[in-house]
Amino acid sequence: MATTPVKVHGPPLSTAVSRVLACLIEKDVPFQLIPVNMAKGEHKSPDFLKIQPFGQVPAFQDETTSLFESRAICRYICEKYAEKGNKGLYGTNPLAKASIDQWVEAEGQSFNPPSSVLVFQLAFAPRMKLKQDQSLISQNEAKLEKVLEVYEKRLGESRFLAGDEFSLADLSHLPNAHYLVNAADRGELFTSKENVGRWWGEISSRDSWKKVVDMQNQST
Amino acid sequence: MATTPVKVHGPPLSTAVSRVLACLIEKDVPFQLIPVNMAKGEHKSPDFLKIQPFGQVPAFQDETTSLFESRAICRYICEKYAEKGNKGLYGTNPLAKASIDQWVEAEGQSFNPPSSVLVFQLAFAPRMKLKQDQSLISQNEAKLEKVLEVYEKRLGESRFLAGDEFSLADLSHLPNAHYLVNAADRGELFTSKENVGRWWGEISSRDSWKKVVDMQNQST
Repeated sequence: MATTPVKVHGPPLSTAVSRVLACLIEKDVPFQLIPVNMAKGEHKSPDFLKIQPFGQVPAFQDETTSLFESRAICRYICEKYAEKGNKGLYGTNPLAKASIDQWVEAEGQSFNPPSSVLVFQLAFAPRMKLKQDQSLISQNEAKLEKVLEVYEKRLGESRFLAGDEFSLADLSHLPNAHYLVNAADRGELFTSKENVGRWWGEISSRDSWKKVVDMQNQST
Repeated sequence: MATTPVKVHGPPLSTAVSRVLACLIEKDVPFQLIPVNMAKGEHKSPDFLKIQPFGQVPAFQDETTSLFESRAICRYICEKYAEKGNKGLYGTNPLAKASIDQWVEAEGQSFNPPSSVLVFQLAFAPRMKLKQDQSLISQNEAKLEKVLEVYEKRLGESRFLAGDEFSLADLSHLPNAHYLVNAADRGELFTSKENVGRWWGEISSRDSWKKVVDMQNQST
């Protein structure tokens, strides 16, 4: 894969980086993963800020453009490589795309905020020897529980969030949900709900996501 | 406009509702605005939850679909009414669209979180006779300041966020920025920065946004 023009800068342990990796693998698009040593502050270096002005990961480059923001990168990959890999990942008509977009936004605006706080507090803070904030954990568990109650109802009406096919909407949830289940001891948030539990089992066992988890495990 | 199939449910004072209204006006798409009395809890009623399962505003309907999440609704409006009104609002080629998408995501993920806390604390809490949380205000002012420093640099390179044309990326910032400047006494966050100040002056004086502000004023 040395000659591919597609580069993803950032560690696969980052939820936003792994979202983009899952998308590239679903779309069967070869890529180079360029390490960014965040412990050494490489994401705040002048060179990196040229491709990611907020000093976050990932940054994405191909032969024609440079992008940041994982969900925008995923949409671009789906549009640019429409004919490769999973052709339905971002829908095959405008209405399907709108439904997918709506649930990608629900992930970004409703699921991600409490999930990312919980992932940091429960999975990363202990590794970084930081004190956990129990009040923040309780507040965000309650918020996430309410979001997942909406998902439970939705997933009783359709197999996946945006309809009957796996899409970018489901994929976008994988990185945070994976840590909540496997590194934060919060699997019950998902498995205690019939439809959410079924959905999580199905999306997390996809080959594309297993490959991302392998990349995460190899990088630790 | 009584026969238009496009319906927006929600009060124009809501930032998410006004984002969709600004987009519809830019695209010259007639719409009906359907009131939702949030003080009476109408956004949590069973009928409303059918079109917005999270019990938030806006909800959007036309002759073919029903959608929620303001940024997803805006993308759908731009795609569906590509030939109407401001044709460049979501770009006219895939690279322009990717750049717009990237800055819409930056708004949703970086600008909106601190801005919406500040708007609530500084503009809405006093009207609702709720106590302001000064520590939350300070934390989020500092976060927003850092985000706007990135914008200052970006807006020194291009006239608007995604390039040299006004786009959905700029439009998405109008609702929160308007309240920060005009209802929360935080105009200096914008006007103290040369490029951000110029940008804010330009985007907030567009006819489309002035019409939204008129709708907000008429509804109070």
